[in-house]
Amino acid sequence: MKNLNLVPFVSVDNMMKLVLEIGIERFSVELSAYIEDDFKRWELFDKTPRVASHSSTGVIELMPTSDGETYAFKYVNGHPSNTKAGLQTVTAFGVLSDVSTGYPALLSEMTILTALRTAATSAMVAKYLAPKNAKTMAIIGNGAQSEFQAIAFMAINGIKKLRLYDIDPVATKKCMDNLRGYDLEITCCASAQDAVEGADIITTVTADKQYATILTDNMVGAGVHINAIGGDCPGKTELHRDILLRSDIFVEYPPQTRIEGEIQQLAPDHKVTEIWQVITSQATGRKDAKQITLFDSVGFAIEDFSALRYVNDLIKKRGHFDNLDMLADPDTPRDLFGMLLRAKQA
Amino acid sequence: MKNLNLVPFVSVDNMMKLVLEIGIERFSVELSAYIEDDFKRWELFDKTPRVASHSSTGVIELMPTSDGETYAFKYVNGHPSNTKAGLQTVTAFGVLSDVSTGYPALLSEMTILTALRTAATSAMVAKYLAPKNAKTMAIIGNGAQSEFQAIAFMAINGIKKLRLYDIDPVATKKCMDNLRGYDLEITCCASAQDAVEGADIITTVTADKQYATILTDNMVGAGVHINAIGGDCPGKTELHRDILLRSDIFVEYPPQTRIEGEIQQLAPDHKVTEIWQVITSQATGRKDAKQITLFDSVGFAIEDFSALRYVNDLIKKRGHFDNLDMLADPDTPRDLFGMLLRAKQA
Repeated sequence: MKNLNLVPFVSVDNMMKLVLEIGIERFSVELSAYIEDDFKRWELFDKTPRVASHSSTGVIELMPTSDGETYAFKYVNGHPSNTKAGLQTVTAFGVLSDVSTGYPALLSEMTILTALRTAATSAMVAKYLAPKNAKTMAIIGNGAQSEFQAIAFMAINGIKKLRLYDIDPVATKKCMDNLRGYDLEITCCASAQDAVEGADIITTVTADKQYATILTDNMVGAGVHINAIGGDCPGKTELHRDILLRSDIFVEYPPQTRIEGEIQQLAPDHKVTEIWQVITSQATGRKDAKQITLFDSVGFAIEDFSALRYVNDLIKKRGHFDNLDMLADPDTPRDLFGMLLRAKQA
Repeated sequence: MKNLNLVPFVSVDNMMKLVLEIGIERFSVELSAYIEDDFKRWELFDKTPRVASHSSTGVIELMPTSDGETYAFKYVNGHPSNTKAGLQTVTAFGVLSDVSTGYPALLSEMTILTALRTAATSAMVAKYLAPKNAKTMAIIGNGAQSEFQAIAFMAINGIKKLRLYDIDPVATKKCMDNLRGYDLEITCCASAQDAVEGADIITTVTADKQYATILTDNMVGAGVHINAIGGDCPGKTELHRDILLRSDIFVEYPPQTRIEGEIQQLAPDHKVTEIWQVITSQATGRKDAKQITLFDSVGFAIEDFSALRYVNDLIKKRGHFDNLDMLADPDTPRDLFGMLLRAKQA
């Protein structure tokens, strides 16, 4: 019989073992299929904008959602100045629970998993929005998320060429070094302008918490798909407003994206399309070769739900978890106090 | 140097060791002092009603708060029918984090800790509201929370006599058995009416998710303090509305209590007093010996914050924790992908 006090826990070390055993490419592909499946049943989910606690240095967020059978939430922080102290900008962990009992079924690290799910979401969405036969992607911002984006777009969308730019050349070099050995032709670029030259897809993934202008209007040509990852909290955007006005904009969950995404620069009733409607054929994705499509991605709880669901399925087959003594389990359920007394006697 | 990937974790077993090493009475007293301290600086805290996900069988809630330096949240479920399957009605765990970095500093079981903090809060509040020299308390509902209430009121308020009633006599017997050995004179009562006879304080702590009437108006005499614990979510109340109309009502956080507490039965502008204002002498608690005071307790995030803060201080002195490999800590912070690659080589 299952020990009711134990919750499976996937540590950072075990997450790395899982990802490496499966392979980063296959993990990205399988994870994106889980996300796509959950986007297809979008209407089933309890949805709420994330619960954010802002401070002068960053934000701590809780992202809950439920499909009525399974509940999940993620804890995630965003602290751009952390890197100066040798810390991660983003760390995360998450929990999957059984709605019928409220008991947690999985606790998992999600720093690595969030990096993978963000990229898997971008690549899944680009299947519906990117120009046909896109082969070249610019990545502006070559930090912790950049390689995951590269691998996901390679594995899922057939991207062959990367054009990298970061204001910090060390970041670009790190990204290039990490991607050596993959089937990708990589060009290190001198500017964002240079990077977008000939790109079918432009991924912006910078980390500064400020209204920035990574892309100006003249840099974005007809037919491009923009995968905008970095503009993801109030006061943090990456694209010039004029680009938004020329683009057809696709979002995850409008009530959250209007607060956190690039579209915080626009009127609150500016037309956007919910990407799940494109995936379920209720709305049109890319219409023609000249259209500029923009995925204004901020990251939504359902993507974390999918990622935890995937990991939960993986560990059942592959192991790589520990059991945590996290839930009190008295001999009789109403006797929590008696459990303490008996522990004293034991 | 501290390993940045590790988060101290207090398991159920370690929580029991901590509680037993200190003693349940002293733990209750010290914890209630932490809660009282945090209620004194109530205005500093980021406050939000808990984020609840309701289903037909229960609720899963996230309860975050922050004082600007430390952030905490609790995950807690409430599933009254769980006991039928041998599960706890309420299980919980929580996390304390550093606001300046967003890094978790503590993960702890909170099933036991919530039981202790709920009782410690009740007893702390009763210092301000209960009639002078109260010696006798009725406890209606003798489930998992009942003994913790008994011990806290004994240790903090000098309660000497308990009058117990539960619709299930097995629960009352369990409560009596567990409290044997403590300096308490215990009477097992045949009805709620019987239990409140001569009681200075009436604690109601039943678990059914429905509009119940544990106490009717005729049962509540002048001068009594009612410690109403069980009415704590929409559709779940314990007291007849007429009792509320005769009482001066004290609450934790009105926006949450109006949704979840006994006062969901009243008009949304019915006068209530925030208990922190009594504790800081900005409002009056008990005015005279005839007044009926009612603490309409639903449990608020700041109490969990205090409890986690207390446990975090305890483990620094006493140990009783494990280190969990919960946070990715690459050699260089922007190189999460490189960490995976190096794990592959290793």
